[in-house]
Amino acid sequence: MATITELGQRAKQASRALALAQTDQKDAALSSAADLLMQRADEILAANAADVERASAGGASSSVVDRLRLSPARLESMASGLRQVATLADPVGEVVKGWRRPNGLLIEKVRVPLGVVAIIYENRPNVTSDAAGLCLKSGNAAFLRGSSGALASNRAIAQVFCEGVAKVGLPEDSLVLVEETSYESAREFMRLRGVVDCLIPRGGPSLIQAVLENATVPYVIDGDGNCHLYVDSSADLKMALSLLVNGKIQRPSVCNATESLVVHREVAPEFLPKAVEALAGVRLVGDDASRALAPSIEPATEEDWGKEYLDLVLSVRVVDDLDAAIGHIQRYSSGHTEAIVTRDVLSAQRFAREVDAAAVMVNASTRFTDGEQFGFGAEIGISTQKLHARGPMGLSELTTTKYVVTGNGHVRA
Amino acid sequence: MATITELGQRAKQASRALALAQTDQKDAALSSAADLLMQRADEILAANAADVERASAGGASSSVVDRLRLSPARLESMASGLRQVATLADPVGEVVKGWRRPNGLLIEKVRVPLGVVAIIYENRPNVTSDAAGLCLKSGNAAFLRGSSGALASNRAIAQVFCEGVAKVGLPEDSLVLVEETSYESAREFMRLRGVVDCLIPRGGPSLIQAVLENATVPYVIDGDGNCHLYVDSSADLKMALSLLVNGKIQRPSVCNATESLVVHREVAPEFLPKAVEALAGVRLVGDDASRALAPSIEPATEEDWGKEYLDLVLSVRVVDDLDAAIGHIQRYSSGHTEAIVTRDVLSAQRFAREVDAAAVMVNASTRFTDGEQFGFGAEIGISTQKLHARGPMGLSELTTTKYVVTGNGHVRA
Repeated sequence: MATITELGQRAKQASRALALAQTDQKDAALSSAADLLMQRADEILAANAADVERASAGGASSSVVDRLRLSPARLESMASGLRQVATLADPVGEVVKGWRRPNGLLIEKVRVPLGVVAIIYENRPNVTSDAAGLCLKSGNAAFLRGSSGALASNRAIAQVFCEGVAKVGLPEDSLVLVEETSYESAREFMRLRGVVDCLIPRGGPSLIQAVLENATVPYVIDGDGNCHLYVDSSADLKMALSLLVNGKIQRPSVCNATESLVVHREVAPEFLPKAVEALAGVRLVGDDASRALAPSIEPATEEDWGKEYLDLVLSVRVVDDLDAAIGHIQRYSSGHTEAIVTRDVLSAQRFAREVDAAAVMVNASTRFTDGEQFGFGAEIGISTQKLHARGPMGLSELTTTKYVVTGNGHVRA
Repeated sequence: MATITELGQRAKQASRALALAQTDQKDAALSSAADLLMQRADEILAANAADVERASAGGASSSVVDRLRLSPARLESMASGLRQVATLADPVGEVVKGWRRPNGLLIEKVRVPLGVVAIIYENRPNVTSDAAGLCLKSGNAAFLRGSSGALASNRAIAQVFCEGVAKVGLPEDSLVLVEETSYESAREFMRLRGVVDCLIPRGGPSLIQAVLENATVPYVIDGDGNCHLYVDSSADLKMALSLLVNGKIQRPSVCNATESLVVHREVAPEFLPKAVEALAGVRLVGDDASRALAPSIEPATEEDWGKEYLDLVLSVRVVDDLDAAIGHIQRYSSGHTEAIVTRDVLSAQRFAREVDAAAVMVNASTRFTDGEQFGFGAEIGISTQKLHARGPMGLSELTTTKYVVTGNGHVRA
């Protein structure tokens, strides 16, 4: 079996050809891979069935098995995902900026692929084709390491994807899958400096910690979302209620779900009882002031304020004013998405400027922080760090830039 | 003495006020700090004299002592540096992009400060005010850790800078200097996750390696420059000679100096003897083909091709064609700056597209990769990594962005 370094070198070699591939060739490759995913559905589903059987026999929870399981419909959606990526604009080659210096030198900042994008991910086998498709369209080679539990599925999908890409003349190694899944191999994967240009871990806190401790390659962290909704004294309370319900209930298990409600004390007496009613089925925990107004709210602990529940649970706090709301959010925010409901333009301005998060919503649900909703067509993740990319990451965020400087014999004085 | 964490918290606190400071207030602070640097010159020079004496007594080399030593002229140039930064455009608040979604949601991507920018640097005390000035103008708090050898100088400069800033009502902690200089404290400094938003190490390979191994905060690496000049078969040889001499001799000790000459075999017989003559005083090492044409060239070892000499030494290689030139550069480049001299537009295009570096020069000296020369006014470093910033880093590269999303009660379907 090839070593991790050898696999990385294959991805790097492929990335050179991909960086120079024309858009129509990359689009043809995506479409060819999509066709082949459907044609070879039986093979992929058989491999997946083996993974599912192993997981069930090993006592995996039903949610783990559900994330692992593919169906003809899920395969179809993977294929249509690739076709969708083919329709998106190619970020590569964009001249981001250009200017001429007083000495006549022309400076152009041009968008180019990162090179090799490495992704460590957990159980979902659809990530294999989704990530590989985004990497390919942005001119990058995808260097993927999934979990051992999805190995047969990932191998089958990767095999088919690579064949599809090779059919139109792009490198088979546009996707390289690491099949070794030991801890040591993960560590090695994170330390291929000079080979991996960007690592994106997609998984829980222990994976993130392993990256922080071990990685020597550059990485982007796709972090937690402890998202707050602040209801200002001037808020349209009907609007506030609808944003709250949407943020909390529409899909509670995702990072842009609303996890905490912060209410101005002037509107709390009217708003909180309505909120409790509208959120029937949601467990509410809150401070004394909120519990005085809505006794069904349970007492919150200090830990609650910082928590990303990813479940039908909401923390509730009553504050004296906008300053206190911003102060509370500043203290407990994970820097993902924070929202205000207000009619007061000065409050909206202050909240948008002072709250430090990847996205600030004014009179909109926290659920909108999403590549699709932003119009990026697809996303590789949502960055909660400040370097390189912040917020939903689409194709552009899988690129870097290069300065092309043109003179006619310019030398420095 | 305050712990590193406490110092970091002070910087973080200050960063909140700085993020909201108006441009004219920041400019006034820079100008006030510049005035005070001149008014308190005696105090700073006395502190510096103590550092210099200690270094000399400790047997430091003359180049180390020279980098450490301040003079009235150097102080004057630090002050005028701060005044110059005050004249630059404020990057904060720029709306980088904005668009309205089909559902009416307005999405704006706004430039905001990073927060706390941490810098670890070596002997030069001028970095203290230069870095603090750039951080302040871009709305960031500067969290600085210099070397023990420059501690008295750094402390005096920081003291004066902070007083100058405080005079106009911005936080004194806009610059926080770490005075502990042990290895353990450096490690702690690199691991203040949640406090430090970006770490920029400015120093040699052992510092970079320490960052790669220990840092858990996001960082940007300011790396080596093994810069090549490729002389194409169609090159104007007079131009090529002038770019070569400028790149190698004008300032050999810097990262954008030319370290390697690659020559097309068709022009090598005419060009190399002229190059040898023009580079009198430069030690040349080369391959057999170059030595056959210019016998004063010494044999190069494999190690030479990858070397950043930072000195009057140049490696020389003769290649068969553009492909071989790109192949050689691809193999040995450090991704900083690569240059081509050519009259052939197709060669220029291919070189600019295929060579993977922060900057590609077409008919211009490698020495132009520089914030000042690019028109940024000042630079905090030159990034050779691909994430966040690539190439010269000016004020914009000390910022991140935030999405401000405005609706009128938008919820997700």
